[in-house]
Amino acid sequence: MILTFTPNPAWDVTYEVDRLVAGTTHRVHTVYARAGGKGINVSRILAKRGIPTMAVFPVGRAVGRLLTDDLSAAAIDHDPVEIGGATRMTVTIVERSQADRPPLEAGRCSPLRDDVTNVFAEPGPALTTDEWSALIDRVDRHLARTSVLVCSGSFPPDVDKSGQTRSAPARLVEMSKASGHLVLLDTSGPGLLAAAEAGASVLKPNAQELREVVGLDDLCSGAQALCSAGAGAVVVSAGEDGLIAVTAAGEAWCARPPFRVDGNPTGAGDAVVAALAYGLSTGASWPEQLTLAVAWSAAAVAAPVAGEVDPDVLATVAGQVSIVPI
Amino acid sequence: MILTFTPNPAWDVTYEVDRLVAGTTHRVHTVYARAGGKGINVSRILAKRGIPTMAVFPVGRAVGRLLTDDLSAAAIDHDPVEIGGATRMTVTIVERSQADRPPLEAGRCSPLRDDVTNVFAEPGPALTTDEWSALIDRVDRHLARTSVLVCSGSFPPDVDKSGQTRSAPARLVEMSKASGHLVLLDTSGPGLLAAAEAGASVLKPNAQELREVVGLDDLCSGAQALCSAGAGAVVVSAGEDGLIAVTAAGEAWCARPPFRVDGNPTGAGDAVVAALAYGLSTGASWPEQLTLAVAWSAAAVAAPVAGEVDPDVLATVAGQVSIVPI
Repeated sequence: MILTFTPNPAWDVTYEVDRLVAGTTHRVHTVYARAGGKGINVSRILAKRGIPTMAVFPVGRAVGRLLTDDLSAAAIDHDPVEIGGATRMTVTIVERSQADRPPLEAGRCSPLRDDVTNVFAEPGPALTTDEWSALIDRVDRHLARTSVLVCSGSFPPDVDKSGQTRSAPARLVEMSKASGHLVLLDTSGPGLLAAAEAGASVLKPNAQELREVVGLDDLCSGAQALCSAGAGAVVVSAGEDGLIAVTAAGEAWCARPPFRVDGNPTGAGDAVVAALAYGLSTGASWPEQLTLAVAWSAAAVAAPVAGEVDPDVLATVAGQVSIVPI
Repeated sequence: MILTFTPNPAWDVTYEVDRLVAGTTHRVHTVYARAGGKGINVSRILAKRGIPTMAVFPVGRAVGRLLTDDLSAAAIDHDPVEIGGATRMTVTIVERSQADRPPLEAGRCSPLRDDVTNVFAEPGPALTTDEWSALIDRVDRHLARTSVLVCSGSFPPDVDKSGQTRSAPARLVEMSKASGHLVLLDTSGPGLLAAAEAGASVLKPNAQELREVVGLDDLCSGAQALCSAGAGAVVVSAGEDGLIAVTAAGEAWCARPPFRVDGNPTGAGDAVVAALAYGLSTGASWPEQLTLAVAWSAAAVAAPVAGEVDPDVLATVAGQVSIVPI
């Protein structure tokens, strides 16, 4: 079972409007609303493909109930921890005319454009020390039947009962390793480096997140720096350039899709994480894992909202991923 | 008691961001979320001033629960009708830097700017014939202890049990008049004209809504046309130009605030309606009603969200409203 932990989940609302005109009222022609947050998106992708998963996250107040109701309706196993603060919302405004939407054509190339997506993200509630402890305990309780732990998103400071503050990602890595489990993290900032130093199995920063933390422009060198710090492997998502993967054993690959897919890039990184977690759980080789990750990511861009993959794009891309050792 | 009827309520979310940059992710620094829709905003303004009110509206699914929970918490009397469809949300994005917000200074003038507000409005659920009948029955049930009925917003077609389609605003006007009650409508399109023809006590279109329906550019002539059609009085909200009021008895006034107030104009019209409904319920003279309406409207612009009035602006404006017979 793949356990996902989402410290700051959200009720994700996506609005499609014909055109965004500043200072006016817009009729929303298409609405998507669902439980979101990076780890929950990972669980959704896995559950839809029949892969056992469990989502742990905090929920608070009325918006929190929207998340649990939605996950129950979608038959995605979840074990939320009640908190006092209100679960946040995010709103994504996509400019896409109803007439405009092209039929999905496998293999189509330029001229393509990404939809213009405008994301408005609430910061989310603060967690008390007791709430954070309850979340860590809940993750720990599920570890015994877990193959891979996925920790995704932004983390609050990890304040323990004695008042000591540590890196939350580092604590989660240490907890997983102590019980012999693989742990995959998709986070940014100081937590990314702390997770590497704690010996995370796999880290999945995007290009910008990696550059911010290691201060190196070259993605391969940056990934190697995190491996040198202690990570087992680093997979960098670089948008339409695909993925760069580097392992502590000194292997490195560049994995690319056969063509660019246009659509909503929100959630493409979550699809990469879902594929890597699944690959890790089945003991797949790195080239096999990366093939899956590129195909799921491309298929996520073609789907209208995070947590979904387009089956036609998935089928087309899966057989044509380029994996090149570097 | 002032009864409000809101056929298409919403969970109104307002986000303040520093600056809207197309195609990027925005950190929302201030979040407001509350039960909304024009009639509910009217009830909120009245209830906050201790004026007895009751809000009737349809509610559906999880978002519907957010509305009823919020109104209960705010101690606003409401009697919702359960429907099968999901209550909609609206999202308003206001560009306003946290540092930017000026302290409220009474009497300040230009250079002022309105906040740039971008509204994203979901269309809302369709109502079945039975649901619409249940709503009308619910309004009817409260009429006995009502002084003024306020009907605000967009209306679905009024399909009766024999399958006949009529104007919903006209039906509400006829129902109120048959039981001897005053009825005030804030709606647009064909319903505005139908409400006039049915003999509405007061209509409150804005300048654009009036021009669209009567096809006359001059607001005074347009308001007179609706009075000629059958309305008892027409009060036109014309933004910073204030209000134009015309009665079937041939009286007419222009009512203006002493200075322009900057802020969020969403909900200013609801404040006008709340003041007029209160004035009607107390038998106030037209100049008294219009003074109240201008002051509440200005104070609503200064408040960050619809359904609120800024007490400092209210106190300052109330004594300085200009009422000129025309």
